[in-house]
Amino acid sequence: MGVFMGRPYFLWFNRRMDTSLLPFFQPKGVVIVGASTSPEKLGYGVARNLIQSGYKGAVHLVAQKSGEIFGKQIHTSLQDIPDPVELAILIVPTKATAGAIEDCGKRGIKAAVIVSAGFREVGEEGAKLEQQCVEVAKQHGVRLLGPNCIGTIDTHFPLDTTFLQPPMPSQGGIGFISHSGAFAAAIVDWAREEGFGFSRIVSLGNQADVNETDMLPMLAEDKATKVIVLYMESISNGKRFVQHASEAAKQKPVIALKVGRFEAGQKAAASHTGALAASDIAFDAAFEKAGVLRAETAEQMFDWAQALENCPLPKGNRIGIVTNAGGPGVIAADSLEREGLVLAQLSESTLTALSAILPPAASIHNPVDMLASASPKQYAQCLEILLQDESVDSAMVILPPPPMFKAEDVAKSVNEVIVKFDKPVVIALLGSTLVGNALSEFRNAKVPTYPFPERAASALAALVKRANGLQSLPTLQFESKVSKVGRLWTPDKLMREYGIPTALIKLARDENEAIAIANELGYPVVMKIASPDISHKSDVGGVMLNIHNEQTLQSGYAQMMKQVKSAMPKARIDGVHIQRQIPEGQEVIVGMVRDPQFGPLMMFGSGGVEVEGLKDVAFALGPLDQAEAESMMRKTWAGRKLKGFRSIPPVDENATRDVLVKLSILAAEHEEVDEIEINPLRVLTNGAAAVDVRIKFKGE
Amino acid sequence: MGVFMGRPYFLWFNRRMDTSLLPFFQPKGVVIVGASTSPEKLGYGVARNLIQSGYKGAVHLVAQKSGEIFGKQIHTSLQDIPDPVELAILIVPTKATAGAIEDCGKRGIKAAVIVSAGFREVGEEGAKLEQQCVEVAKQHGVRLLGPNCIGTIDTHFPLDTTFLQPPMPSQGGIGFISHSGAFAAAIVDWAREEGFGFSRIVSLGNQADVNETDMLPMLAEDKATKVIVLYMESISNGKRFVQHASEAAKQKPVIALKVGRFEAGQKAAASHTGALAASDIAFDAAFEKAGVLRAETAEQMFDWAQALENCPLPKGNRIGIVTNAGGPGVIAADSLEREGLVLAQLSESTLTALSAILPPAASIHNPVDMLASASPKQYAQCLEILLQDESVDSAMVILPPPPMFKAEDVAKSVNEVIVKFDKPVVIALLGSTLVGNALSEFRNAKVPTYPFPERAASALAALVKRANGLQSLPTLQFESKVSKVGRLWTPDKLMREYGIPTALIKLARDENEAIAIANELGYPVVMKIASPDISHKSDVGGVMLNIHNEQTLQSGYAQMMKQVKSAMPKARIDGVHIQRQIPEGQEVIVGMVRDPQFGPLMMFGSGGVEVEGLKDVAFALGPLDQAEAESMMRKTWAGRKLKGFRSIPPVDENATRDVLVKLSILAAEHEEVDEIEINPLRVLTNGAAAVDVRIKFKGE
Repeated sequence: MGVFMGRPYFLWFNRRMDTSLLPFFQPKGVVIVGASTSPEKLGYGVARNLIQSGYKGAVHLVAQKSGEIFGKQIHTSLQDIPDPVELAILIVPTKATAGAIEDCGKRGIKAAVIVSAGFREVGEEGAKLEQQCVEVAKQHGVRLLGPNCIGTIDTHFPLDTTFLQPPMPSQGGIGFISHSGAFAAAIVDWAREEGFGFSRIVSLGNQADVNETDMLPMLAEDKATKVIVLYMESISNGKRFVQHASEAAKQKPVIALKVGRFEAGQKAAASHTGALAASDIAFDAAFEKAGVLRAETAEQMFDWAQALENCPLPKGNRIGIVTNAGGPGVIAADSLEREGLVLAQLSESTLTALSAILPPAASIHNPVDMLASASPKQYAQCLEILLQDESVDSAMVILPPPPMFKAEDVAKSVNEVIVKFDKPVVIALLGSTLVGNALSEFRNAKVPTYPFPERAASALAALVKRANGLQSLPTLQFESKVSKVGRLWTPDKLMREYGIPTALIKLARDENEAIAIANELGYPVVMKIASPDISHKSDVGGVMLNIHNEQTLQSGYAQMMKQVKSAMPKARIDGVHIQRQIPEGQEVIVGMVRDPQFGPLMMFGSGGVEVEGLKDVAFALGPLDQAEAESMMRKTWAGRKLKGFRSIPPVDENATRDVLVKLSILAAEHEEVDEIEINPLRVLTNGAAAVDVRIKFKGE
Repeated sequence: MGVFMGRPYFLWFNRRMDTSLLPFFQPKGVVIVGASTSPEKLGYGVARNLIQSGYKGAVHLVAQKSGEIFGKQIHTSLQDIPDPVELAILIVPTKATAGAIEDCGKRGIKAAVIVSAGFREVGEEGAKLEQQCVEVAKQHGVRLLGPNCIGTIDTHFPLDTTFLQPPMPSQGGIGFISHSGAFAAAIVDWAREEGFGFSRIVSLGNQADVNETDMLPMLAEDKATKVIVLYMESISNGKRFVQHASEAAKQKPVIALKVGRFEAGQKAAASHTGALAASDIAFDAAFEKAGVLRAETAEQMFDWAQALENCPLPKGNRIGIVTNAGGPGVIAADSLEREGLVLAQLSESTLTALSAILPPAASIHNPVDMLASASPKQYAQCLEILLQDESVDSAMVILPPPPMFKAEDVAKSVNEVIVKFDKPVVIALLGSTLVGNALSEFRNAKVPTYPFPERAASALAALVKRANGLQSLPTLQFESKVSKVGRLWTPDKLMREYGIPTALIKLARDENEAIAIANELGYPVVMKIASPDISHKSDVGGVMLNIHNEQTLQSGYAQMMKQVKSAMPKARIDGVHIQRQIPEGQEVIVGMVRDPQFGPLMMFGSGGVEVEGLKDVAFALGPLDQAEAESMMRKTWAGRKLKGFRSIPPVDENATRDVLVKLSILAAEHEEVDEIEINPLRVLTNGAAAVDVRIKFKGE
């Protein structure tokens, strides 16, 4: 526990894996309950895969009828099976599943994969059966995977509890957690052609017990897993996910494909912040907070995973490109720019070295275009020269079918150079039949290849994001203290409690109220006529500045009423607005809406009445540290222009960031506040002041 | 010729193909000059491809040494060759090329492909040799393709003048124009695996004579070409390209991948419009004007092309999805949303029909999830029911490896349904080995397949864009009349000439000037103190409204000077600003910068001093018709909020659109105006007025 702004906080706590889940990947002994001798049955497929997987423990088969498959006897009772047995795979009728779990528990088997479907996903009756399973499992201390799932694979142990069509996926470093069994099955088949392998695969099914968050540490702690990919449709507990994912992301890259992005419509909201914070924005913020890379498409997720599995991390975002053709080089350069990467500026000695080995018509400037005649040796030499240059952080080699040489010879030469350096190199390998052997060469050497420069650039960008992400892990997490006073907090009091300066505008219905308010706010104050009928207040004498004391206020009040009534006799007058006088400045919005899954979601951006139309806002999950607040500000024009722009003078960025951080702490500590919004926050040359603060309390 | 706003205009004129280019695809007789008996030489490869292509005309071989290849005699002189010969392929040393062209010309051969390199691309000397070729060709009326190109292919005629590795690309409906030979070669190889074919392919090389724009009509007029794809690195003549591309796009879909997007930095510019109009924005605007679909990546270009080649166009953007698994269905739904498509709301009768054939646990609402047990028959039935629904414009069938059936059986059943309807259907075929036969089935039936739902959605979106594009072709094109008076035009005069109302702010240095200006502008006017030292003018008596005549102006002037001097004796006074008094309203920016390639590039958006930071602007190529102006306005928040937003009252959208159209006509007619910007244009409840107009004339 540490102290921050006088408040205690907890460091992200280290979540180690739950050893009760280990049998799902590395069990000592497995029993298949519901094994079958009919090849078209799942109970046959599971037995086939498990036995063919090379699993080294004992495989036991149980079914209602005895028999034999794969040279193994089928028993009719769990009791007939010798120790050790740590995992059961249940392929029994839906209604018999709870009973089977009970049998497992009694037999001392504490982990079960429920392959059978027909539970929650089919309606109420199924949901009841599923609930029975959960209760029985709890009673007997059995952990459940599924129901309605395809099980687990560990290619290194090895273990395959699925019924997927053989062969088993290749060994590799990608750990894959999937909410969809069909998606996992399709990816496993696709991976065969794409040439990448997996360490562990888990399909979660209905998640009656074990969910995606539980499985994260199982992959994070697994040595064979180099990168974790998550296909997610939902989340069980947002805050717990962020904790576990953050812990996992410290150890290895985590990539998520979260679908249902556009599903949830806008919620009714009390503030601009609430209206703008669609539920998917909270996922974006949560992934960012946890250091999880969010992929847009399935293809992108695995493109990234292959680079993250096999490449060292780069020191920066400067890329060197080697090509034998100009066109693909320009495509690559474009893609770098789109991905936020830059073309490395090559050093003088690099340029000299390149021109020594390339023909005069070649382009020695990045992208280095060696021309169509480029030999395997020239490819290797140029790449080596680029990687030696300190201004090159990563490289992309572009290899369309070389007109004069075999692509595989280029691949061999290039691979020899790549291993010499601790810098990432990816290949854009264009074509198909003419580069087929080259593809095999690269895959054997574990060098990531992509069919087009655009995808290679996206993979390089993922490496840079990962490298940057490791350097900027958020440090703080607050335990919230729910305030007992609850809704008794006023905006004033809350702002004061958290040290956020205000210049709130208050309505005084008469002279005495005006004096009382001014005394409370402190002089100097501004007084403005309050009337729904007057838009140009100063034209009718309805604005008074520089009121330094009570006397001036009193005389000013009388004078203003007189002037306004004479100028606009029919205007309705509600009184006057009193505000502490503050200089002009820039105005921004700072807000928070409490996401039901992830907690306080902070917003910063261009405020005013147009905030919802302009959408110049950024979101992040609270509580924020200074770096996170800074990053939000940089993402918006409102934040960037605080430095000044053209005739707009610079204002106090630090004070703005400070308010953002403080509001995020307020949100973390006051769970009874559902939404809070400062709009505008007036940012001055020195300091900032909240001009209007709106709060929605829980249940309002 | 028609009349618009009292001005003559020309309709897009119908560009027919230039018949002198026909021999590049369908020559009567071809001669290869520089044929070779050595298999590693290009002169051998070209002979091999041409002969093996099945070309039905006579193939003649010429070289310095006589000999024989492929059973054909090699002649040593062009003169030895019998008629007809319409095309020569030149693979001779760089320095001998001009001579070879001359020989062709004399022999009556009016088209030549120059395969040889070593010209402009290698430097000054090469550029001179290239220039020689062009001059000789002009002299003898020979059209040139290249140099430094890989030639042409027509798979239907058939003809193959390239030296690419056999086999020749498959027949298909994609016509492909490429600025990069290497890119074309790689795509041809990649297409073999992807299973799509080409009608015509042309690699342009150095474009000494024939360029991308010349080739557009050659594909537009070709019956076998169903869709045109362009890989572009540059453009020879922007306006001519827009004309030809627009003409081609009326006949068939045109897709462009324009690279070098981020190459050109910002130019120094006199206006906000100029500063924001990076050169690539002009390309975007040009493609939009011409009805060309711009692809972001190479993969996307061919994904779109396959759908556009093989599918009918949809009537709308409502998509029905059929799947056997929930996960990929959600991915698909997300992707639709991202692409601007919508999930079709199925009719009651559709829902009834679906529930009659699907198990109770299936989801009959779109996406229709038939569950993992879905049979080939169920796939076909569900697709048929969806396509019968009038609320479904297109469909996506998602097919991961079906656990209980063969994917190819599903493919067969689905294909039988697709042919019955005139609606586009695309397939997301997930996996590889398990769906390999299904892939063949779909390819044979010319049904576009994509490995993931995201790419299938992008292809459906391209179909919708194409359908919409055909409905909104721009109609006007102005011939510009360069004004002789040139820079003598003042902003006032120009605005008056084009009927754009103004309320310009003018500086009067003394009372007499103030009176003169007010008389010119017309009463009522507003007068404001002009001083660099006074920011809150009204606080010091420096603002006077409602000045209805000269007398009030005179007395007001004296009073204002007195008040200001007494309040701020040290302030520097430049005089007063006089402006015709107009009501408050919304303010926007309307601007034009003349693009060197494409001509007037119009801008519309949020104005003020922050325009460059906010970047709430849209661009389009002028001249604009009402629909184009409307579309620009809709793309920006500034345009959308003209309708009113929260407490902001609505203002005159029509007047705004009118100014945008008028400014675009001004720009078309005044070529001497390089940049013009109205910032702000004050938009009122009725009408709009230019408050400030800046003009940069050519050469300033």
